Amino acid sequence: MDEFALIARIRERLKTDDPRVRLGVGDDAAVIAAPRDDVVVSVDAVVEGAHFDRRWLSWRDVGWRGMVGALSDLAAMRARPVCALLSLVLPDDLGEEAALALVDGAAEAAHAHGASIVGGNLARGPVVSQHTTVMGEAAHPLTRSGARPGDAIYVTGTLGAAALGWRLLAADAADDGPSFVARWRRPRARFDALPWLAHASACVDVSDGLAQDLGHLCAASGVGAALELPRVPVEPDHHAVAAAHGLDGDVLAASGGEDYELVFTCPASLDGPFTCVGEILEGEGVELRDADGRVRLLDASGHRHFG
Amino acid sequence: MDEFALIARIRERLKTDDPRVRLGVGDDAAVIAAPRDDVVVSVDAVVEGAHFDRRWLSWRDVGWRGMVGALSDLAAMRARPVCALLSLVLPDDLGEEAALALVDGAAEAAHAHGASIVGGNLARGPVVSQHTTVMGEAAHPLTRSGARPGDAIYVTGTLGAAALGWRLLAADAADDGPSFVARWRRPRARFDALPWLAHASACVDVSDGLAQDLGHLCAASGVGAALELPRVPVEPDHHAVAAAHGLDGDVLAASGGEDYELVFTCPASLDGPFTCVGEILEGEGVELRDADGRVRLLDASGHRHFG
Repeated sequence: MDEFALIARIRERLKTDDPRVRLGVGDDAAVIAAPRDDVVVSVDAVVEGAHFDRRWLSWRDVGWRGMVGALSDLAAMRARPVCALLSLVLPDDLGEEAALALVDGAAEAAHAHGASIVGGNLARGPVVSQHTTVMGEAAHPLTRSGARPGDAIYVTGTLGAAALGWRLLAADAADDGPSFVARWRRPRARFDALPWLAHASACVDVSDGLAQDLGHLCAASGVGAALELPRVPVEPDHHAVAAAHGLDGDVLAASGGEDYELVFTCPASLDGPFTCVGEILEGEGVELRDADGRVRLLDASGHRHFG
Repeated sequence: MDEFALIARIRERLKTDDPRVRLGVGDDAAVIAAPRDDVVVSVDAVVEGAHFDRRWLSWRDVGWRGMVGALSDLAAMRARPVCALLSLVLPDDLGEEAALALVDGAAEAAHAHGASIVGGNLARGPVVSQHTTVMGEAAHPLTRSGARPGDAIYVTGTLGAAALGWRLLAADAADDGPSFVARWRRPRARFDALPWLAHASACVDVSDGLAQDLGHLCAASGVGAALELPRVPVEPDHHAVAAAHGLDGDVLAASGGEDYELVFTCPASLDGPFTCVGEILEGEGVELRDADGRVRLLDASGHRHFG
């Protein structure tokens, strides 16, 4: 791979006419017009071998997923996306077309969510890794730490779908649930939910799994939570497809990662396209209650990010 | 390594009282108070094996160098540093103390330049890599593309010192030039030079080597340049130490990377703590002129970043 030729091709693809971007890819740094609101920044990474396997995804999917995983953290902060930077490590033998497909997937995901890639870096290394920094703005950023006892807990969308899709791929059974596989390969960050968060007290995105991410929110807020497992929303065929593969649909819904749905808490009762799944309590930790109200312990406690 | 224990220790170290940082490490994203000026962002990476070898640096040095390499791009844009994010890939067997030393080195470099680390990510992988995103602000960002024929070319500091230090390390001869080794291990970004850039027309930092980085500036500006090799400033013992190791001091000064000095152009003649090394010309490319005014071709054309 010739560094400068590849960089020139990448630059060509990353041109943007977003008026917020005063200077995009190609100089020592990018320049973004002074935002009116607070700036919200986060970085996320995917590493070949730890987070994905080449057999399960196209390079375009890898780029898309890496970008969405990062953008989702902005949604959880109630921030609007502005721009992203991409730092890639690519093995010598990867080939220029694979590198461009990865960049294209990341750029496609950025555009689909209203952001532009404005900078990046290329380096050589033994496995592919993608480090995505995202920048957004928020008039009133929402944190993990504002939940109070008595708040209701809501989630957007359906849960466990990405985890089920990943398990189908790993079992070479993608045809048994293509919609689940698509949820894992092409997740969306829930910026469409930002208006629903107007009265939220705290929020986190589901990257590690509902129980674990809710646990992070509780720890940051100094509270506990009761999570009602039967209320956790899943896709209509979730339990049937899971059972056909010997998987527990409830465990997947409560602990499966990478759905990038939002979990938020609210002192008031809300109506809208989201689901109440429990309540914030005094104390600490997340209690998982089954249909009979009994406390249930999950055997899979979620997905560890550092892996 | 336990992910959450390590993250907790890192968070403890990265607490900041910078009033610009509304929310630092620990939530889904960091929040920076709305800047008055344009936001300038860049990302840079160092990968073990490609950019450094464990024998030549402490982990603290690795973290420091990675941070300075990124910050230097802000200086080249005439931007003041605000904050940084660190995405690290760490092998399983690295050990928590090495990881913390790397973070400490990066944080030390950030603080030394007036920035705070406000976020990051940890992932596992076969070799260490550090991806550093930096954010600054600038009322009037300076680009690479404003140089015009007739502009004088200036450089800050001395050049070739880091490259000489790296070669001494690689030759197991660090004792022959400890000050050069220190220049490679502990570079500084030249934010102190920002006031001198008030009338500059273009700027780039010396990461790949003076001739190559000036070449990037010329290409972006659509101009050529004449670089007078005898005027390129070097340390007093540069030529003697280089010669003692069979190296050409002029080649090191013109093509050695990682000094993180600034090269800038200016339509007016300037006096100050920097050195005029040549002139912007019509045309394209960088002509290197020796003491007799003859055009000289370098045998080492600089350092390729994608390596």
